[in-house]
Amino acid sequence: MNHKFAIAIHGGAGTILRSNMTEAMQMAYEKGLEAALHAGIAVLKNGGRSIDAVEEAIKVLEDCELFNAGRGSVFNHIGKHEMDAAIMEGAQKRAGAVAGVGHVKNPISLARAVMEKSEHVMLAARGAEDFGRAHGEVFCEDAYFFTEQRYEQWQEALKNNNITLDHSDKKFGTVGAVALDVYGNLAAGTSTGGMTNKQYGRIGDSPIIGAGTYADNNTCAISCTGHGELFMRAVVGHDIACLMEYKGCTLHEACDILVHDKLIKIGGEGGLIGIDKHGHIAMPFNSEGMYRGCADSSGMLMISIYKD
Amino acid sequence: MNHKFAIAIHGGAGTILRSNMTEAMQMAYEKGLEAALHAGIAVLKNGGRSIDAVEEAIKVLEDCELFNAGRGSVFNHIGKHEMDAAIMEGAQKRAGAVAGVGHVKNPISLARAVMEKSEHVMLAARGAEDFGRAHGEVFCEDAYFFTEQRYEQWQEALKNNNITLDHSDKKFGTVGAVALDVYGNLAAGTSTGGMTNKQYGRIGDSPIIGAGTYADNNTCAISCTGHGELFMRAVVGHDIACLMEYKGCTLHEACDILVHDKLIKIGGEGGLIGIDKHGHIAMPFNSEGMYRGCADSSGMLMISIYKD
Repeated sequence: MNHKFAIAIHGGAGTILRSNMTEAMQMAYEKGLEAALHAGIAVLKNGGRSIDAVEEAIKVLEDCELFNAGRGSVFNHIGKHEMDAAIMEGAQKRAGAVAGVGHVKNPISLARAVMEKSEHVMLAARGAEDFGRAHGEVFCEDAYFFTEQRYEQWQEALKNNNITLDHSDKKFGTVGAVALDVYGNLAAGTSTGGMTNKQYGRIGDSPIIGAGTYADNNTCAISCTGHGELFMRAVVGHDIACLMEYKGCTLHEACDILVHDKLIKIGGEGGLIGIDKHGHIAMPFNSEGMYRGCADSSGMLMISIYKD
Repeated sequence: MNHKFAIAIHGGAGTILRSNMTEAMQMAYEKGLEAALHAGIAVLKNGGRSIDAVEEAIKVLEDCELFNAGRGSVFNHIGKHEMDAAIMEGAQKRAGAVAGVGHVKNPISLARAVMEKSEHVMLAARGAEDFGRAHGEVFCEDAYFFTEQRYEQWQEALKNNNITLDHSDKKFGTVGAVALDVYGNLAAGTSTGGMTNKQYGRIGDSPIIGAGTYADNNTCAISCTGHGELFMRAVVGHDIACLMEYKGCTLHEACDILVHDKLIKIGGEGGLIGIDKHGHIAMPFNSEGMYRGCADSSGMLMISIYKD
């Protein structure tokens, strides 16, 4: 045991501007992020495992209707909620992911069930839901996922025939967490409600192991939020791990190469959170803002939204 | 122009034993592989692009009922054919993928349409089919995908409640191609009919960019076939590219590290085909056999099944 633990979370990146935010809204977002961090810390400070901390922190974000994941998921083209999630642990590099699932309260828990209770890594749509029902996951009616704000965004998108990444402004609605526990184990998880008015069963980077979600005890745990297609083509999570393992980069150097160089060059807007085995945390983004927070066993706790 | 071109293809890896193969069967497989190679060569020798060569070679394999992709796809748990495919080009690292699609004659062409005609990288199931219909892809009735042999495999699997990767023996049914064209551009593609009696909308490594399929002009193009879950966790295709780019490995060294070391350690049976910008080709596998072939502008043409 190294007795040190650390956790970082995000609630999405994008064009988040102070000028568009009321004080009450900002406080609500900060409160949501803080609750998620505390859920993770509660696990870690009692000697719990990083995979549990990641799941608990993400469940809080999924249950909060402000974030585009779980309860707060956006409406797709036909007025449904199609969610994706992935989780990975760094000791054995086991992973679970679900794509295009509806009605499940906590997609991150379903992804974990896939990891632990199936022989598979990734299950999709109806099949993933059937698997979840067979393994005791909680399912909710459409009403649980209904929020006036998301409904209006959808109506607006339908009217304009737009597919938007989260709100009417350019925002990548995703939540995620990465953690190091006192046993030196890393874990990462990501969950999203996708794009408003999305069609064609689009799958983004969140549930793709190596792209939006990756964890390896030897290097780092990563959770991304951004323009998913470009994050998939750049295999962002795994590329950061390889820059550390094969090129000797630090976590910060590797994250900066991805976020401020490689992704910029291909127009990949967004950000990510990363943690290494020493508990170092990186939270870079190339967008206007990223809902984010981190904490560790020294008592440090930080929540932030803008660049400042 | 370097005037040099090269192509490699595979038709799956696994427990392919001489003792289980009739001479007629072996000749049929070899004929299928040769036809696919010639389709790719026909594109490349006329100055065609590697992405076209990959698509044409894979279409031949998809149209051949011997291979578990397209027409020869296995039956899933409910007697349907659920196919996955991905394609990627190495110049701009654009990619397209489809998962869980039914009735489409050539999933590799649908993946290419996603790459070229959508803003997305990955589309799933019904959504991917709708997209294909809107963009002129060819769809076929169930009868097109019916083969007596696959049907019997499914009935056998249902009876034993087995989910098998291809045949009754351990065989990873996938097809793939990688190519270098005279302009120095690399491309990779992979297509599969999944697992006999598969449930729960399982997605394997084939349509995952970075895992079963990857291409980057700076390093290599890779197409995998094997125990998909382990190939996903190891992010095989992208790991080979990173070993070359960040650690200075040759294509052969990087492929060997994955297939004969990393994958062995986690029990990941299978193989892959890889090509680099010089036209070097690697076709390693850690299973009993792998249906494979390669050819280049020097006139070399090779087809092989066993270890020999």
